[in-house]
Amino acid sequence: MLSQCSLNSRFFPNIIRPSPGPFDFENLNDAVVKAEHAVRGAIVTRANKIRGRMAKGEVFPFSSVIPCNIGNPFAVGKHEITFVRQLIAATEVESIRRSHGVLPEEVCERATELLAHTPGGLGAYTMSQGIELVRQHVAEYIGLRDGYPADHKDIFLVNGGSQAVEFLIKLITANSNVGVMLPYPTYSLYTAELDMCRGKGVPYFLDEDNGWDVHIKELEKSYIEARDKGIDVRALVVINPGNPTGSVLQKETIEKIVEFADANNLMVIADEVYQHNIYDKNYPFHSFKKIVMNKRARIPLASLNSISKGFMGECGHRGGYVEFHNCQEESVAQFLKLASIALSPNSVGQVLVDAMVKPPQSVECKTIWDRETHAEILSLGRKARLLQQTLEKLPGMKCNKSRGAMYLFPRLELPQKAIEAASKTIVNGKPVKPDMLWAMELLDNTGIIVVPGSGFGQKEGTYHFRMTFLPESEIMDDVIERITQFQNKFMEKYQ
Amino acid sequence: MLSQCSLNSRFFPNIIRPSPGPFDFENLNDAVVKAEHAVRGAIVTRANKIRGRMAKGEVFPFSSVIPCNIGNPFAVGKHEITFVRQLIAATEVESIRRSHGVLPEEVCERATELLAHTPGGLGAYTMSQGIELVRQHVAEYIGLRDGYPADHKDIFLVNGGSQAVEFLIKLITANSNVGVMLPYPTYSLYTAELDMCRGKGVPYFLDEDNGWDVHIKELEKSYIEARDKGIDVRALVVINPGNPTGSVLQKETIEKIVEFADANNLMVIADEVYQHNIYDKNYPFHSFKKIVMNKRARIPLASLNSISKGFMGECGHRGGYVEFHNCQEESVAQFLKLASIALSPNSVGQVLVDAMVKPPQSVECKTIWDRETHAEILSLGRKARLLQQTLEKLPGMKCNKSRGAMYLFPRLELPQKAIEAASKTIVNGKPVKPDMLWAMELLDNTGIIVVPGSGFGQKEGTYHFRMTFLPESEIMDDVIERITQFQNKFMEKYQ
Repeated sequence: MLSQCSLNSRFFPNIIRPSPGPFDFENLNDAVVKAEHAVRGAIVTRANKIRGRMAKGEVFPFSSVIPCNIGNPFAVGKHEITFVRQLIAATEVESIRRSHGVLPEEVCERATELLAHTPGGLGAYTMSQGIELVRQHVAEYIGLRDGYPADHKDIFLVNGGSQAVEFLIKLITANSNVGVMLPYPTYSLYTAELDMCRGKGVPYFLDEDNGWDVHIKELEKSYIEARDKGIDVRALVVINPGNPTGSVLQKETIEKIVEFADANNLMVIADEVYQHNIYDKNYPFHSFKKIVMNKRARIPLASLNSISKGFMGECGHRGGYVEFHNCQEESVAQFLKLASIALSPNSVGQVLVDAMVKPPQSVECKTIWDRETHAEILSLGRKARLLQQTLEKLPGMKCNKSRGAMYLFPRLELPQKAIEAASKTIVNGKPVKPDMLWAMELLDNTGIIVVPGSGFGQKEGTYHFRMTFLPESEIMDDVIERITQFQNKFMEKYQ
Repeated sequence: MLSQCSLNSRFFPNIIRPSPGPFDFENLNDAVVKAEHAVRGAIVTRANKIRGRMAKGEVFPFSSVIPCNIGNPFAVGKHEITFVRQLIAATEVESIRRSHGVLPEEVCERATELLAHTPGGLGAYTMSQGIELVRQHVAEYIGLRDGYPADHKDIFLVNGGSQAVEFLIKLITANSNVGVMLPYPTYSLYTAELDMCRGKGVPYFLDEDNGWDVHIKELEKSYIEARDKGIDVRALVVINPGNPTGSVLQKETIEKIVEFADANNLMVIADEVYQHNIYDKNYPFHSFKKIVMNKRARIPLASLNSISKGFMGECGHRGGYVEFHNCQEESVAQFLKLASIALSPNSVGQVLVDAMVKPPQSVECKTIWDRETHAEILSLGRKARLLQQTLEKLPGMKCNKSRGAMYLFPRLELPQKAIEAASKTIVNGKPVKPDMLWAMELLDNTGIIVVPGSGFGQKEGTYHFRMTFLPESEIMDDVIERITQFQNKFMEKYQ
């Protein structure tokens, strides 16, 4: 499929046209070409090829490919929260909503209430900012969570947290000298968006030896280094609970981060999409908004939440919200403009945000809701502990506990021979990183997909991988069996 | 809500922080600040304020605000296509899918088939390119439409046509010297995306005196002028059926456009989201893909379709697709990367694309489907003619027929006094454009929202407005009554 290199223009016969076609690779925007998103990168492509070959009957040393690379619970056996899906059906189809007995009464009433505030129903573009009633419910949820009232005017519904990040980075990166501080290891969405906007990521490293904690000294060091390079640092991203680390920040740490941002004139982007994924009662979730309110700090804050994570896990439906606090009205208006250029967030995702922030109240629905949502979080916590304890004991591996989110980020202590083997393994014309070699061998031998730590940024000379603990219990037992066998053989092979 | 101007940094006490906060308006990306999307601009804000005041009991000279500014059919009374919504409910809720008698058998079978090809169901991220089965159905649809086979590997599902435009413009604008040819009057999404990517729009004017036709001489003139200014013109956008013009291109015209693009090494972006909105049997729809295949042209082509338009009108669900043809694999891989950074298009939008391209076959479902979809297009055609005939006869107005899409783009012959009045009407610190004055007076006196032509680009000294003919028949009668009275009074006032 090569596009034309039209050497003989009919309209301008004397002009030799340039050789590359107008949409040829070498003509494309290099900022986009440069961007990478590790969680959907080379390993996933390799896994898809294996899946394709398996489908054609080829035999592999495993019976199935198991995706542990991405926080996508339904892909690995999650069960639906009944109320959530019923609410979609009732909102979409009048005959279902009006029939007696097909769906619980509360579902139909809730759907009717939502539709009364959604002119034209789910088929119409909503307000670009999102359905007002849903935003009011989000504000009530935040108010209850933090003990401070929230205003629906400060809340925007979006097609998943990613869209909010896209818009925020687009607005902040006024020029290629603007920097945004990012936790390292980081979620590659941030580096990808910054690359595409030609802004600068300013890494601050998390303390692996202390459960991936944030240290203020490290923030200061990172900030000063960037400033000394002439970078105009404008914002600080904090992911709490942590992706890819599974850490949960203590209240005192958040207070210090807020002080740091305040002192250095930084906006804070609080990526709190895992706020319901909490597995250790000694490490509860504290929102940045609450701490900012406690301290009466004046830093501009954008905090994110998502239906893709927590007990919902509804990734495919693409929904979430961002709350602005201490932000200029004119700036928020520019965010609204970006939302309006995309017309409106998808309507079903908005209905799911509504369900997330306002659980059902009737005995009929609430009983099931409570059982399903509690079971989901309890089960995730169990699997997090089980997997961590297994990995921690394997040769050549160390692994912090996961107190939140959906991930472990174990450290690989790779034998020198493995590092040398990586330097001789050429993929796409380049030697692979040592943790990429490890992840490739894991995939080829076990069918388990993980993401090499190099895709998230890690301290020089250290190697890791990110792994979810989402697969349902039976699959998880299989995962543990496969990875244990593999790691023992891998260490033998390269010892 | 003013963010802090932290004059006394605790960490760097000797440094006076710069005055504007990190997220203050004056610090934001000026390329975003510059972008405008007319269809959701100042008039809509004004209308929302009126709605708010009406809700508080204030009395206006009209009983309701009627949005004729945007192609959003459900907001003005459209009825759902039964099969489409039933398919969502069946795909979302197992108990509904498995119950006998709640939904037709074909709906449940279709949902089951879709789910068999969607690992984890609608709650999981899909492939970033979109569900493979849906893309296969899209390929079959294109094959039947054009008489040439299409390949699902060339098709990407997206969150509405807008997202495909966003990705394409992002990829094409390698630097600020890259130009994209746009029809004028144009759809402001294209100018907004180009502004945000710092690319250059290269207008070519449509011929109002000949039903907004495209002339090759005008394309050549526009191309040469841009080239002489040193602009690197890489792509040509064609919107067919036309937005905002309602025109439908003849086959011969498309052939000439393809020749022009071929001769000048241009990619074609064929915005064909209105391909089902055809109202004149002498002006059938011809796809660019078909013409390119007929002529065996080698131009890179991206063609768009959407669930928001046509008989579906499902704007709120955000779905659509783009088909690539004659494009380098490596370039399409970059489009895939953009899609993967956004994770995946929303799953329900993909289900709706499936319904659009593969109508039901059982007597039970097909009978209703045929009745509903035909009625929708027939009714749109009737309303288009009725409104055009009305406007054409009003003083100070001329109006081309709408042969497709959802719009009329009538010309206003404004009295000199109205033009002078505009120059003295100050909004946001600037005198308003004459057609903005007209649209403001129309809104204030009738509650009808239209978009001033200046938001789309028009020939110097001409004035227009874009108006949809979507309101259901009864509302449409009211619209005609209100606008007729208004225009007579307006012309009297300024004569």
